[in-house]
Amino acid sequence: MIIGKDIIDQYNKAGVENFNSDFDFLQNKLTRSGANVAEIVNKIADFQVAIPSWALGAGGTRFGRFSYGGEPAVLEQKLDDVGLLHALTHSAGAVSLHIPWDIPSDVSALKESAKSHGLVFDAMNSNTFQDQPDAKKSYKFGSLNSVNEDSRAYAVEHNKEVIRIGKELDSKSLTVWLADGASFPGQLNFQTALSNTEKSLKEIYADMPEDWKLFIEYKPYEPNFYSTTIQDWGTSFMLANACGERAFTLVDLGHHLPNTNIEQIVATLMYKGKLGGFHFNDSKYGDDDLTVGSIKPYALFLIFNELVYGIENNKNNPYPAWMIDASHNIKDPLEDLLQSLEAILIAYAQALLVDQKALKTAQLNNDVVAAQDILQNAYRTDVRPLLQAARLQSGAALDPIATYRNLKVRETLISERGWAKATGL
Amino acid sequence: MIIGKDIIDQYNKAGVENFNSDFDFLQNKLTRSGANVAEIVNKIADFQVAIPSWALGAGGTRFGRFSYGGEPAVLEQKLDDVGLLHALTHSAGAVSLHIPWDIPSDVSALKESAKSHGLVFDAMNSNTFQDQPDAKKSYKFGSLNSVNEDSRAYAVEHNKEVIRIGKELDSKSLTVWLADGASFPGQLNFQTALSNTEKSLKEIYADMPEDWKLFIEYKPYEPNFYSTTIQDWGTSFMLANACGERAFTLVDLGHHLPNTNIEQIVATLMYKGKLGGFHFNDSKYGDDDLTVGSIKPYALFLIFNELVYGIENNKNNPYPAWMIDASHNIKDPLEDLLQSLEAILIAYAQALLVDQKALKTAQLNNDVVAAQDILQNAYRTDVRPLLQAARLQSGAALDPIATYRNLKVRETLISERGWAKATGL
Amino acid sequence: MIIGKDIIDQYNKAGVENFNSDFDFLQNKLTRSGANVAEIVNKIADFQVAIPSWALGAGGTRFGRFSYGGEPAVLEQKLDDVGLLHALTHSAGAVSLHIPWDIPSDVSALKESAKSHGLVFDAMNSNTFQDQPDAKKSYKFGSLNSVNEDSRAYAVEHNKEVIRIGKELDSKSLTVWLADGASFPGQLNFQTALSNTEKSLKEIYADMPEDWKLFIEYKPYEPNFYSTTIQDWGTSFMLANACGERAFTLVDLGHHLPNTNIEQIVATLMYKGKLGGFHFNDSKYGDDDLTVGSIKPYALFLIFNELVYGIENNKNNPYPAWMIDASHNIKDPLEDLLQSLEAILIAYAQALLVDQKALKTAQLNNDVVAAQDILQNAYRTDVRPLLQAARLQSGAALDPIATYRNLKVRETLISERGWAKATGL
Amino acid sequence: MIIGKDIIDQYNKAGVENFNSDFDFLQNKLTRSGANVAEIVNKIADFQVAIPSWALGAGGTRFGRFSYGGEPAVLEQKLDDVGLLHALTHSAGAVSLHIPWDIPSDVSALKESAKSHGLVFDAMNSNTFQDQPDAKKSYKFGSLNSVNEDSRAYAVEHNKEVIRIGKELDSKSLTVWLADGASFPGQLNFQTALSNTEKSLKEIYADMPEDWKLFIEYKPYEPNFYSTTIQDWGTSFMLANACGERAFTLVDLGHHLPNTNIEQIVATLMYKGKLGGFHFNDSKYGDDDLTVGSIKPYALFLIFNELVYGIENNKNNPYPAWMIDASHNIKDPLEDLLQSLEAILIAYAQALLVDQKALKTAQLNNDVVAAQDILQNAYRTDVRPLLQAARLQSGAALDPIATYRNLKVRETLISERGWAKATGL
Repeated sequence: MIIGKDIIDQYNKAGVENFNSDFDFLQNKLTRSGANVAEIVNKIADFQVAIPSWALGAGGTRFGRFSYGGEPAVLEQKLDDVGLLHALTHSAGAVSLHIPWDIPSDVSALKESAKSHGLVFDAMNSNTFQDQPDAKKSYKFGSLNSVNEDSRAYAVEHNKEVIRIGKELDSKSLTVWLADGASFPGQLNFQTALSNTEKSLKEIYADMPEDWKLFIEYKPYEPNFYSTTIQDWGTSFMLANACGERAFTLVDLGHHLPNTNIEQIVATLMYKGKLGGFHFNDSKYGDDDLTVGSIKPYALFLIFNELVYGIENNKNNPYPAWMIDASHNIKDPLEDLLQSLEAILIAYAQALLVDQKALKTAQLNNDVVAAQDILQNAYRTDVRPLLQAARLQSGAALDPIATYRNLKVRETLISERGWAKATGL
Repeated sequence: MIIGKDIIDQYNKAGVENFNSDFDFLQNKLTRSGANVAEIVNKIADFQVAIPSWALGAGGTRFGRFSYGGEPAVLEQKLDDVGLLHALTHSAGAVSLHIPWDIPSDVSALKESAKSHGLVFDAMNSNTFQDQPDAKKSYKFGSLNSVNEDSRAYAVEHNKEVIRIGKELDSKSLTVWLADGASFPGQLNFQTALSNTEKSLKEIYADMPEDWKLFIEYKPYEPNFYSTTIQDWGTSFMLANACGERAFTLVDLGHHLPNTNIEQIVATLMYKGKLGGFHFNDSKYGDDDLTVGSIKPYALFLIFNELVYGIENNKNNPYPAWMIDASHNIKDPLEDLLQSLEAILIAYAQALLVDQKALKTAQLNNDVVAAQDILQNAYRTDVRPLLQAARLQSGAALDPIATYRNLKVRETLISERGWAKATGL
Repeated sequence: MIIGKDIIDQYNKAGVENFNSDFDFLQNKLTRSGANVAEIVNKIADFQVAIPSWALGAGGTRFGRFSYGGEPAVLEQKLDDVGLLHALTHSAGAVSLHIPWDIPSDVSALKESAKSHGLVFDAMNSNTFQDQPDAKKSYKFGSLNSVNEDSRAYAVEHNKEVIRIGKELDSKSLTVWLADGASFPGQLNFQTALSNTEKSLKEIYADMPEDWKLFIEYKPYEPNFYSTTIQDWGTSFMLANACGERAFTLVDLGHHLPNTNIEQIVATLMYKGKLGGFHFNDSKYGDDDLTVGSIKPYALFLIFNELVYGIENNKNNPYPAWMIDASHNIKDPLEDLLQSLEAILIAYAQALLVDQKALKTAQLNNDVVAAQDILQNAYRTDVRPLLQAARLQSGAALDPIATYRNLKVRETLISERGWAKATGL
Repeated sequence: MIIGKDIIDQYNKAGVENFNSDFDFLQNKLTRSGANVAEIVNKIADFQVAIPSWALGAGGTRFGRFSYGGEPAVLEQKLDDVGLLHALTHSAGAVSLHIPWDIPSDVSALKESAKSHGLVFDAMNSNTFQDQPDAKKSYKFGSLNSVNEDSRAYAVEHNKEVIRIGKELDSKSLTVWLADGASFPGQLNFQTALSNTEKSLKEIYADMPEDWKLFIEYKPYEPNFYSTTIQDWGTSFMLANACGERAFTLVDLGHHLPNTNIEQIVATLMYKGKLGGFHFNDSKYGDDDLTVGSIKPYALFLIFNELVYGIENNKNNPYPAWMIDASHNIKDPLEDLLQSLEAILIAYAQALLVDQKALKTAQLNNDVVAAQDILQNAYRTDVRPLLQAARLQSGAALDPIATYRNLKVRETLISERGWAKATGL
């Protein structure tokens, strides 16, 4: 199924009048307070978030999985799904593949398909947290950190294969997330595990083309429940420094201990030029992988406030790679992703509204009340008309979810694909 | 595979000399300080913990599962495995079944098998957190709390079926754990969900034979990541009161928010006569389901201190049902259970050593230093010879894991059963 | 210092034009979607939050305190400060006293003063967590839970004295917050402590006039760091039930373990008719006592969503008592309270906008996407013009903080009162 | 008050017989399993922990403080108190001073006194988290991170003064703990704060004598409740690297988010040669500053397991500085410190018993069950006779707390010093 621009235009008609009224009001208000609304709308329109190929089907928990109809069964269908999201929002212009779930059979056909949807291939993802049916070595007790030299080499080789595939697709980066760790005290020697991990990452780094970047993800726990070898940003940062200039830390919002101040980590990494990428989701308890912005939208705004500041001020930091990494257990995955995209862009728009000059003045004066007010003023603004303006000028839908439902996308996908389970997770 | 008492005796011979030396030393020491060692050893020997049928195979996480060889494929084999544990420890004299994973095909044969292993059927467990292949209604959005009257009735009926099966096996209690809840704000109406749950539980309660007990488990999150309808002991306690005198709260050690004082909850429930059962495991982050005592053994001791106190002083509280509820992702499940049994009995033995009279005096004098010392003195005692004495007098193994390994149990099971995956989780 | 209505009117003039534009836009928008804007504005205008007398000076931490100029030195000045807040917002129409810090020397003068400011005396607060200089018994090891019968009686008598003082001031409720607990395992016997607490509360309850309510606060930790006798809502609820119909649970937002779902607790208590009062603040780590809405505004909205629902649907639950309970370590306390009042009313206004009918439909259909959208739609609305409308119709300030600063209130207070430290905390 | 060796000997007599029996039993048992008991006892005897001068009086919380009699009023008395602890345990052979609370009036007399007690001056502590009565600049909004250049310079100068005083006392290190941070989003610019802190630390580092070390402490929150500039080990490590070879990270057990794996941090820092010092305490909720080992003794053992391993294997890491940093709210401070010393040495002794060779083998074989068993076997051993042996050979008390009580130390101190509050915290 493909959603043409003309169909979207048609559905937009019904909402344009209200949109115009909302946008005019907001534009006037913001302009009065000194904001450059056109520039903000352009920035929103330019913001593109990668969709991972595994997010298009129903996720699950260790207690089970409730499947969803019309899930994409093959890689081509996954691209089609991202294409639907991009057509509706013009914000999902990239796809992030996962190997071995997404090994392309016909590379040029796949690239052609991506092009037709307006998509690029963002960071490639390796998988050393599961044993594949034909695996020659097991990752049960670790991969890049393994005391078993064969398992370690096998995991390194897998990452090199991911790079090879990524090169064919014009991807420019590799994300390494390691489940490696221990579930019991004594199980592994922390220092040996860290040292092995460093050695493995250096081998992978050395194998990357010169225009590639390596993103090293961290996570405190799960699936290992006592320790994870790359447990926090400090460990990831240390390893990225050991690898070299094109190695960076990747922040996944759900990969933190309770109450962590994530925005401060973001600021620290950008200050050091080492923030490579970002995985968006939301959570209340752990790595819950919920829809972005569904639990702590103000925290998301504060993070975007640091991202906007860093993109403006930390020229040593490359422009970060954005990706949604959520699990869709009880919602239609595409609707869930639309809600995530909306929440991301709302937080971004709010952050763009922060009066940085006034904020700096308040900070210099230790005027804590004013500093808080400046942030809250941006956050409390209803910025949704700015997102609509960005979508309208890009030919996307004023109201993506309503359009998706009106177009009966899910019903169509089910009739096209049936109820089969998606490959991968 | 069955381990005869004679074989165990034979293996014990090698360790008896050291045991005698250790036990004599400890007995003398404890007797000097006023303890009745023989009585303590008897109490340890009498303590029996139920093994759930689903704990005998490899568990997994949402990221995958690494299977283990020789897993029991059918219910009869599960009983055999518990029989092995009981032969080695004489502490695992009960099994806890899970429906629909463990529907017996031949009830009398099963009872005969249990009898031959010295096992009884402890609390029955229902399952409304997954949809079975032949399910007529889905639990995707809840079961006992469901807004859908059909799903709710279907879940109630399932629990009644579990009671029917349990009656045939001479079980005397039903444990209800509900995954019911929401992953997103707004998804459910808290009050309606609670009210529906209460109504459902009352229907189940009304269906129980008069000599049965209902155990209501609570859990703050997972698999739902925003709210769980029975989120804490307070909610469970409220519902148990609503059901009646034979409804109780069940405490699972992993089902608490970070830093919860669980021993205080235990004391409160016993004070009110409402502690029905206990699920043992350990955790560092969430419901990690690790080996008992592997992470926070002092907390386990403090909990047992309250249990011992309550069993002695709260005659209104029935003797609780004990069960291990752990997941075995990377260890041999039987070895893991042996380690859990050891940790439980160590904590119990330490708690039995607490000088309750001196403790009370210290508390009355607000002598905090002495009160702490009294607990630590019991905890720091190496009580392992007491456990060995209990096992020796019951005909079990002095060193269960060493005997298990020497007897090559796992290798035998693999040769008997192969590498097939266990049924259920 | 007193701020007259005429002065406020004068300052409002500058902002009225923009307000009119903002309000008209919002009113049209909301009216189109079916909301009764006038009714909502009236509800906002009617919402009154009590200010505790101890919140008007600088707070501190165990590491020290940075004092603030112009703090109220005596009770009369505290009332004056609340009067200033009420004049600026017309939302702070009550004061909550703390005994022994606020024992009135001249009751009728005090009542006269309150009347002149438009204030009533809300819940009285007792203090058994500190020893006063002239204390005859110590609360070092507990008060209402004490093993020492004299300390327990002394604490009960203190609460009775608070009731006596409250009666003279026409207060109608007593809030009991107990620090009672233990910092070390073994220090106290949980069951004895709970039993003593229950006995003490019943004595206090029996002493209350028939038109009074007892609010029992709970808190998991601090200042005791191992256990608190009333550690959670379940314990408070149990004690409230034991006391009688006019005993209720009081929720303080900061008194929860990490990640607690507070809105579900609110819903449960209202369902049972046992939510008595509410202490507003915000926190990231523990009982941080930060400005309301400064850290987790969406959680605050979700709580208000349950409050609005419960006030509408749970007629068995009395209208709750609202109070701000924050500590002002680095901000001007009055400005901080103005920010808190604003955040409370914003959350309330957003909750009033929730389309309850559509939400119920979504819930019945398990349309999780729509349910989330309905809540987010209300939350994302910029409701500040509704608050301004409410203030304008009450004669309060369109922009309270700007008016406060323009009027140089703090400077005036300093010149009037100097730099002396406030009494109490 | 001074406790002579002869008095201790006299009190020891009563316990020697039981000790001999206990020690013989344990020595035989350990020797059988290959341990070098004499070497272990020597290591325990050599282990010295610094006592901070502020730990000798009653601590408090923000809710108040219950004072204790006989607290040391002046620095000389503080040394006397540490002398008492050292006489009783021979494990507290150092004192850690805090400036400005402990500015010595007569340096040579103070050094003489220390020498007579067998004490050395360990790390010096600066204080920029409070304003002193005569302060020329305020630290209300930060010190080393301050946007105010004068405050920043004032704080740097204070640290230089601490170094000057420390040099006179032959101290060789400076510990910097910064409360600097923010209680509200927007209050400070993270990058500016971090950059200022780095600049300040470098200035302090440059001022240190060449044989001094700088210890940089980290803490996630409190007294600031939104962010702390040096929030975690990663930030401290980054700053230590920026300063130079003699700058190190200092770990305080209470300064971590919930569920942090501290032993892994310890291992990582030692691997990098950057673990400078250690502050011992225990906690259940936050920075509770409870008696060491009173809440999570197994976690303490696991940390010591890494320390013992690192001291043996990481020759690039200097021998760490040990200090107790607890707060004594309800116990006699000296008794509390005796309990802490005992818990530290127990964990150390248990860690010395770990069979490192067998552990390595188990790890290489991924024998998780055995690895856990090896650690638990060491931990479950009752090592108290080893501590007694170490004390006996050093002339300290077999049972320090009993001796302390028998000698009526507290009563004597009260009669000597009265009930006056200690200086400082």
